[in-house]
Amino acid sequence: MSAKYVIGLDYGTNSVRTLIVNAANGREIGTAVWEYEHGTSGVILGRDPHLARQHPADYVKGAEESIRAALSHAHDRVPSFRPDQVVGIGVDTTGSTPIPVDAQGRPLAFQKPFANHPAAMAWLWKDHTGVEEAAEITSLAKRVRPQYLAKCGGTYSSEWFFSKILHCLRTSPAVFKAAYTWVELADWVPAMLTGTEAPAQIKVGICAAGHKAMFNEDWGGYPDAQFLGKLDPQLAELRSRLCSQAYAVDQTAGRLTDSWARRTGLPAGIPVAVGAFDAHLGGVGSGIAPGTLVKIIGTSTCDMMVVPVGQRLADIPGLCGIVKGSILPGYYGLEAGQSAVGDIFNWWVNYIQPMGSKVSYQTLDEAARKLQPGESGLVALDWNNGNRTILVDQRLTGMLVGQTLYTTPSEIYRALIEATAYGALTIINRFEEYGVKVKQIVNCGGIADKSPITMQIYADVTGRPMKISQSAQTCALGAAIAGAVVAGAHKNFAAAQKAMTSLKPKVYTPNSKAHATYKQLYLIYRKLHDAFGTKGWQGNLHDVMKQLIDIRNRVRQ
Amino acid sequence: MSAKYVIGLDYGTNSVRTLIVNAANGREIGTAVWEYEHGTSGVILGRDPHLARQHPADYVKGAEESIRAALSHAHDRVPSFRPDQVVGIGVDTTGSTPIPVDAQGRPLAFQKPFANHPAAMAWLWKDHTGVEEAAEITSLAKRVRPQYLAKCGGTYSSEWFFSKILHCLRTSPAVFKAAYTWVELADWVPAMLTGTEAPAQIKVGICAAGHKAMFNEDWGGYPDAQFLGKLDPQLAELRSRLCSQAYAVDQTAGRLTDSWARRTGLPAGIPVAVGAFDAHLGGVGSGIAPGTLVKIIGTSTCDMMVVPVGQRLADIPGLCGIVKGSILPGYYGLEAGQSAVGDIFNWWVNYIQPMGSKVSYQTLDEAARKLQPGESGLVALDWNNGNRTILVDQRLTGMLVGQTLYTTPSEIYRALIEATAYGALTIINRFEEYGVKVKQIVNCGGIADKSPITMQIYADVTGRPMKISQSAQTCALGAAIAGAVVAGAHKNFAAAQKAMTSLKPKVYTPNSKAHATYKQLYLIYRKLHDAFGTKGWQGNLHDVMKQLIDIRNRVRQ
Repeated sequence: MSAKYVIGLDYGTNSVRTLIVNAANGREIGTAVWEYEHGTSGVILGRDPHLARQHPADYVKGAEESIRAALSHAHDRVPSFRPDQVVGIGVDTTGSTPIPVDAQGRPLAFQKPFANHPAAMAWLWKDHTGVEEAAEITSLAKRVRPQYLAKCGGTYSSEWFFSKILHCLRTSPAVFKAAYTWVELADWVPAMLTGTEAPAQIKVGICAAGHKAMFNEDWGGYPDAQFLGKLDPQLAELRSRLCSQAYAVDQTAGRLTDSWARRTGLPAGIPVAVGAFDAHLGGVGSGIAPGTLVKIIGTSTCDMMVVPVGQRLADIPGLCGIVKGSILPGYYGLEAGQSAVGDIFNWWVNYIQPMGSKVSYQTLDEAARKLQPGESGLVALDWNNGNRTILVDQRLTGMLVGQTLYTTPSEIYRALIEATAYGALTIINRFEEYGVKVKQIVNCGGIADKSPITMQIYADVTGRPMKISQSAQTCALGAAIAGAVVAGAHKNFAAAQKAMTSLKPKVYTPNSKAHATYKQLYLIYRKLHDAFGTKGWQGNLHDVMKQLIDIRNRVRQ
Repeated sequence: MSAKYVIGLDYGTNSVRTLIVNAANGREIGTAVWEYEHGTSGVILGRDPHLARQHPADYVKGAEESIRAALSHAHDRVPSFRPDQVVGIGVDTTGSTPIPVDAQGRPLAFQKPFANHPAAMAWLWKDHTGVEEAAEITSLAKRVRPQYLAKCGGTYSSEWFFSKILHCLRTSPAVFKAAYTWVELADWVPAMLTGTEAPAQIKVGICAAGHKAMFNEDWGGYPDAQFLGKLDPQLAELRSRLCSQAYAVDQTAGRLTDSWARRTGLPAGIPVAVGAFDAHLGGVGSGIAPGTLVKIIGTSTCDMMVVPVGQRLADIPGLCGIVKGSILPGYYGLEAGQSAVGDIFNWWVNYIQPMGSKVSYQTLDEAARKLQPGESGLVALDWNNGNRTILVDQRLTGMLVGQTLYTTPSEIYRALIEATAYGALTIINRFEEYGVKVKQIVNCGGIADKSPITMQIYADVTGRPMKISQSAQTCALGAAIAGAVVAGAHKNFAAAQKAMTSLKPKVYTPNSKAHATYKQLYLIYRKLHDAFGTKGWQGNLHDVMKQLIDIRNRVRQ
């Protein structure tokens, strides 16, 4: 019997990747990356630093180019491989990345008059132009629909669906009027591949709708028309043109069209799964299951858990989202995150550039590895880009305390790594405080793969083993798993994950002596965290510097 | 009538300088520096990083060499100058730098058995080996003689006279036993030049005795024998061999001996003034007078004021010392200080070395000068080396708050300069809170001379003009002024200062817009200062980061 393969199509911020995976064992036999052609590394910028858009033409060409190249790459590596062995496709994308489309579901940017209009393009996840509209939505919901906010951490973000659409309505009314409706990139790509773009046909994923557009079947889908009408009557009208149902990734969005089969070389008619966000399918590709916390650690983190539907689950304050079916069908998807991890290290190494001409990750890693916990006398807060979980506050900033006249660049570097570890521990604690037990932690993403010192510090700070996902492309792998499930190659996600995902043999285990010191340091971090981050804290910080000195002196002896 | 000249002999940490000054107008006509020969740049170090000693032989050779070279230099520049035009000498030194001496007042280190014994050498000001003894003295005084501490900031330092002597008694009893008594370097040099080293003859300066040895005529000189006896009976015995009187710098220590006249080429019999500490005579050389704050700004600062004896003066908490006659005869000398200023800048530039290969003071100065107050969103505490005034707490450390992913090295550099300015303002406020009005600020020292950006920020933060002393050698100039007074070239210090000191034409005047922003930032600094630095503070810091962001956004608009 010939092997079956599935494709994961992974739309990132700067490029799209196709990964071809053996559905039986998860072996990755071919891959290709295509860099977007428009803008700066694929991102169209403006004079407003908040603006970040993408041209939908890149999404179309990116699918064709990367699939063809990956098929060719797979054939080079496995000469017996034939494209007709591909039985299914899954798609993950960035998000919330909404696209204004016409009545046929085609992006407005494909029409001549709008071809160069930034508002007619895809509003990339990191576009923050809707910051005022986000505040308005948050404020309104606080007053009249607090339940909407309870599922998304208490604050509606400028990065999300309705903030962007409302900002378009206010600032580019012609584009808003010309748009029949708005579609998330994660929904649009599967629709494009399967010819189901038409608003009547498109299947919307619960991942994007639930996490970024306040969609919840408990209140009948998207926010009600009355609520949206208070923001703007045209937004209430738009609601009637949005889908009334949303689907998990075990559902088929449609089947690959003849046209796309010709363009890519894939067999026509193979199923394409409903799309989801990259991080969430990254959780799937890392083997997420009840009790397993998956951390995708890159510039920032996405920390995910799942809880079986039916099991008692509280609203957990500070989480970015709690959405039924958003990660795995049949489970609540719980999303938390740190606003910056790799970005903080990058700030120190590439913005501050310490150590004169010797600055590099390698020299800093080497020097920082030789330090004992507590030896520097430093504690930092990991808030250079605000705090997502558990404070949900963008208006927080970084902090470093304990420096002397002899503090070295590598001591500060290590303190920054430790700060992100304390932030990670705070998220773990938050899950457990609300009854979601963390039995295993699986890490993936650039930092997990490339920074052993970070992983060891995470183990030492949390007192828990840090496991690493085997695949370096867990998002694309998770998408491929969705493709395998909708193709029937596995009976469900659990079976597909069991067959197709694995962990690296190297596990970072906590050192008990280091953990004992970090327990004391975490109390200091937590005190600073609460003093600077919460309104309720009352106290005095007179002991902070003295405790750091005492710990330092003890460790140095 | 032929011009009269005076000599200032300035004993620093690494070298001794002779400055030859025209007594009529303060013109500096000749100078020479002689680097100490022993140890590392003149400092003898040990395995204990607290240990810092000097060999007294350097003091002797240094006087001879630097005086001869300065006379020759003066002759080169003013061909009509003749050594017999020199009418008086003043001496300033580091301190507390006590030297164990024999019954003839000769340093023990001049005896063969002790020639290489570190405990028999001069215990340099920055020797901290007596840290435990200092804590013991502080603790005892708190219980039984609180008045002793009230005049020296509430804490007896490991850098001071009795901490060092008690440490010698405990750790090198043979040296302690061999020493007849102990003499401050500031007292020993004038005695050496005038042949008055013998304990019965030597004139002790009130500056060293009052600021570092708890000498005060209110309680009969040095701490009483009962108090010293509780530390060690041998210390009580030593007290009887210490002087019972101490003198201000308008007194003559003696007259230059024939032997020293031959060795230097100076006329025998000219008067040598009682010695004092470098910083205090730097205050004199900067024109200190009631209402004038003199700041000597180098690696750390010494902030001095004088208040006429007879004027009501409270004990000012947090000052390092309040000593009658210690700076100017007839005035209380008030000394405050910041533990690190230039040292903090040096830490950032030379320890952290930001900006990769482009790091330098010049590039950082240029970039920091372009920033507006508040633009960085940063506030720092200037405590990398603890806090001298007003908290008197070595167990405090640095802090930086407000950093984002885009914070630059020059923004942090400027924030560190600003932090030292906030520290300077806190000292000014402390003087004024206790009724000592600051009407004028005169700066001198390396930072005042070389860092225009620092001086401008100090003006903008304090809202007061920053004036700069004309002389680059204010300590040596102040010593020369003392020489002029004891020589009768001027009737008193006020007249000598009027004739011999001056300010640079350049005055840094505060920019009112910058000052308005700094007023807000200082409130944040002060909140952090009190929260981390005092036991009494109770509160919440939730608004700190948000206020910094608001100020930043307003300034950037």
